[in-house]
Amino acid sequence: MSLINVPANPPGPMREFDLQTLQALEKELQRDFDLVAANKLALNLSRGKPAADQVSLSNGLEDTINGHYTSADGIDTRNYGEIRGISEARLLGQEIMGVPASNILAGGNSSLFLMHTVISLAMHKGLWGDARNWREQGSPKLLTPVPGYDRHYALTESLGIDMINIDMTDTGPNLDQARSLIAHDPSIKGIWCVPKYSNPTGCIYSDETVKGLAELANEAAADDFVVLWDNAYAVHDLVEPAPKLASIFELAQAAGSANHIVQFGSTSKITFAGAGIAFIASAEPVLKALENHLSFMMIGPDKVNQLRHSRFLNGRVTEHMQAHASLLKPKFAIVAKVLAEELASLDIATWNDPAGGYFVSLNLIPGLAKNVVGMAASVGLTLTPAGAPFPYGIDPNDQNVRIAPTFATPEELLSAMQILALCVKLASVRKFITNKA
Amino acid sequence: MSLINVPANPPGPMREFDLQTLQALEKELQRDFDLVAANKLALNLSRGKPAADQVSLSNGLEDTINGHYTSADGIDTRNYGEIRGISEARLLGQEIMGVPASNILAGGNSSLFLMHTVISLAMHKGLWGDARNWREQGSPKLLTPVPGYDRHYALTESLGIDMINIDMTDTGPNLDQARSLIAHDPSIKGIWCVPKYSNPTGCIYSDETVKGLAELANEAAADDFVVLWDNAYAVHDLVEPAPKLASIFELAQAAGSANHIVQFGSTSKITFAGAGIAFIASAEPVLKALENHLSFMMIGPDKVNQLRHSRFLNGRVTEHMQAHASLLKPKFAIVAKVLAEELASLDIATWNDPAGGYFVSLNLIPGLAKNVVGMAASVGLTLTPAGAPFPYGIDPNDQNVRIAPTFATPEELLSAMQILALCVKLASVRKFITNKA
Repeated sequence: MSLINVPANPPGPMREFDLQTLQALEKELQRDFDLVAANKLALNLSRGKPAADQVSLSNGLEDTINGHYTSADGIDTRNYGEIRGISEARLLGQEIMGVPASNILAGGNSSLFLMHTVISLAMHKGLWGDARNWREQGSPKLLTPVPGYDRHYALTESLGIDMINIDMTDTGPNLDQARSLIAHDPSIKGIWCVPKYSNPTGCIYSDETVKGLAELANEAAADDFVVLWDNAYAVHDLVEPAPKLASIFELAQAAGSANHIVQFGSTSKITFAGAGIAFIASAEPVLKALENHLSFMMIGPDKVNQLRHSRFLNGRVTEHMQAHASLLKPKFAIVAKVLAEELASLDIATWNDPAGGYFVSLNLIPGLAKNVVGMAASVGLTLTPAGAPFPYGIDPNDQNVRIAPTFATPEELLSAMQILALCVKLASVRKFITNKA
Repeated sequence: MSLINVPANPPGPMREFDLQTLQALEKELQRDFDLVAANKLALNLSRGKPAADQVSLSNGLEDTINGHYTSADGIDTRNYGEIRGISEARLLGQEIMGVPASNILAGGNSSLFLMHTVISLAMHKGLWGDARNWREQGSPKLLTPVPGYDRHYALTESLGIDMINIDMTDTGPNLDQARSLIAHDPSIKGIWCVPKYSNPTGCIYSDETVKGLAELANEAAADDFVVLWDNAYAVHDLVEPAPKLASIFELAQAAGSANHIVQFGSTSKITFAGAGIAFIASAEPVLKALENHLSFMMIGPDKVNQLRHSRFLNGRVTEHMQAHASLLKPKFAIVAKVLAEELASLDIATWNDPAGGYFVSLNLIPGLAKNVVGMAASVGLTLTPAGAPFPYGIDPNDQNVRIAPTFATPEELLSAMQILALCVKLASVRKFITNKA
């Protein structure tokens, strides 16, 4: 289904068009834009969450209890206790995160809460039960590879921690930048990472980058440096065989830095986005400090939900994620097809074609992102706010637009992508006209 | 079932016995104590949690979804969002807490987490979205009516807040003490309250006390004073008709202090202790500040569990709690019977006979609590540590022992209470012998 009959692109890159061609193209695009505006649409490409058909894959969670509430380790899951979670939930964490169950804490429905807890604890009391904490030496800072995940930034800022951007490359954060920053500044306390299908660029950290990150704490001036490893899309592959991420857990053990790596995971985009279970993986001293800290704020996680998840998923995570991939691949294909057909020959944007995860990252001609997001909003297409994938909401080049294709239906997605492409072309052609006039 | 054949008490108060009678009694009690020790028991009266038969009353929670995950307000509960909770969960909060649903936030499985969040927010950013916060004026303090709930104290201490004890009376905290403390000290920022079946004394705050607490913020030197109203046992009645607690919500509205009252509740002792849902009730500015604060650490609560609870409980909380009462009344009767039979005539302890809640508070001759808890431990009976119901674990009179009768079976409870009574008698008789010798 197509809402508009977008004109065919003239041949060649837009920057090479003469003024007359640009003006003719603008006229055609403007006419299409006006037609779209008249349709009073309500489309949305901003929602990085699973669609109803995806969450429905896990409706079987409700049938797992069937009167049997006792965990494999003999715990009545209905009652209080067990801050580290029941053993079979920690086994599920092992299956998802590739870290031994003995190094995993299974929590409640939010990995973001676990991140908040880790950073709060690091700030106020430290992660190792000793005197180190991030507040001691003045104003703490975290490295933020950009573009990245807006909720990491909001959380960091809310806790009074400053952020220093470094570049995200196709193989992960630029470690040369990271190393030169941390070597002499003990106020830099860590780095945020989404190592697989990074939000939003979709890149997978290379083996060399993972090894470099595993060893980074050894090179930091701060003795309480922490790699915050949010492996949110650990098993969220769209292709087979699934790309492999190197094990930072094993590399850190080899480097003697295991106490400085804290990994996060969850089933939010495996089962129910709001009603899943979340995990932390780290070395025993960190888990112990966290267990102690958490015991001041809760008596234990929801172990019944841990039991549901373990019974439903243990041993079949890969199979379950293949069902997700079947639903998601056509959507990512729509995004790739529209971008290729509408924008590729004009050479007015670049984007990735991720092998998994939840996002496509679109880079426009610098200076156009806010413009395009605003144009789209004016015709009923909601996009992630320009700048959102950057700390403090500031995209220094104003060029990145994050596309979240999962929640919309394929029909909505196709329309939305066509409108997005139209807005990108119209904003670009206007820019070239201004430049040439 | 009785493990021991405790000797009948000689007539009259123990303090009036002559030395010979005391020594004869000690000999008998010591013999019984040695017999108990030989039995190598493993009994426990420290666990303030529901028994398996109680949580089983809510196994029907699992049957409520049946493929239908959409809330009454049209939310797909499986997905992200809704920090304040779904509307029917807020209605359940209304039914339990007696506060309009529009003033309720429904959260995850832990009211303790909500308390931690409120106090953290009050400390660092304030509860009203303005400049007020508890850190501004030096070292903040909370009033703690004692004896009270150990987790309140641990949480308070973990956040770096000092505690000032005031007396708990049969009608609630001693408000004359509170008023004279807060009138001129702006560093006193609030008061902890468990207003119904207070942990551990079981008292219900009188109407006059509730009114005084509702108005307390108006009398405080601090302009950011907060009454922390942990109504954990709001519907946990053992008698009919259930005693009524005055509505601090309505009284505070009348007093113009609604922004200074934050109420907490949960279904932890209604459905599943570890897998229930928790609530906050307060005025809109506080809920708004909390919603904003929570949004940095989570995308929403587990709404599927909120839906389970709403469908299972809405409109039938009273009926459900009567089923709990049927299971609990025989247990509280065992405690009352053993204490009356073994200790009353000797006049060596006082205790309450609560109309609800989870605890019986036993007051010994001053100086004997640690002694009795230690003696009990030596024969296999675990009691709540002496001092636990006091800030910093310090019972100034070393006389309070908290009895938690709910988790044990009736048979275990009877044995445990007989051993406790034996320990109390033996410790007391030794004390009188020492005094007379």
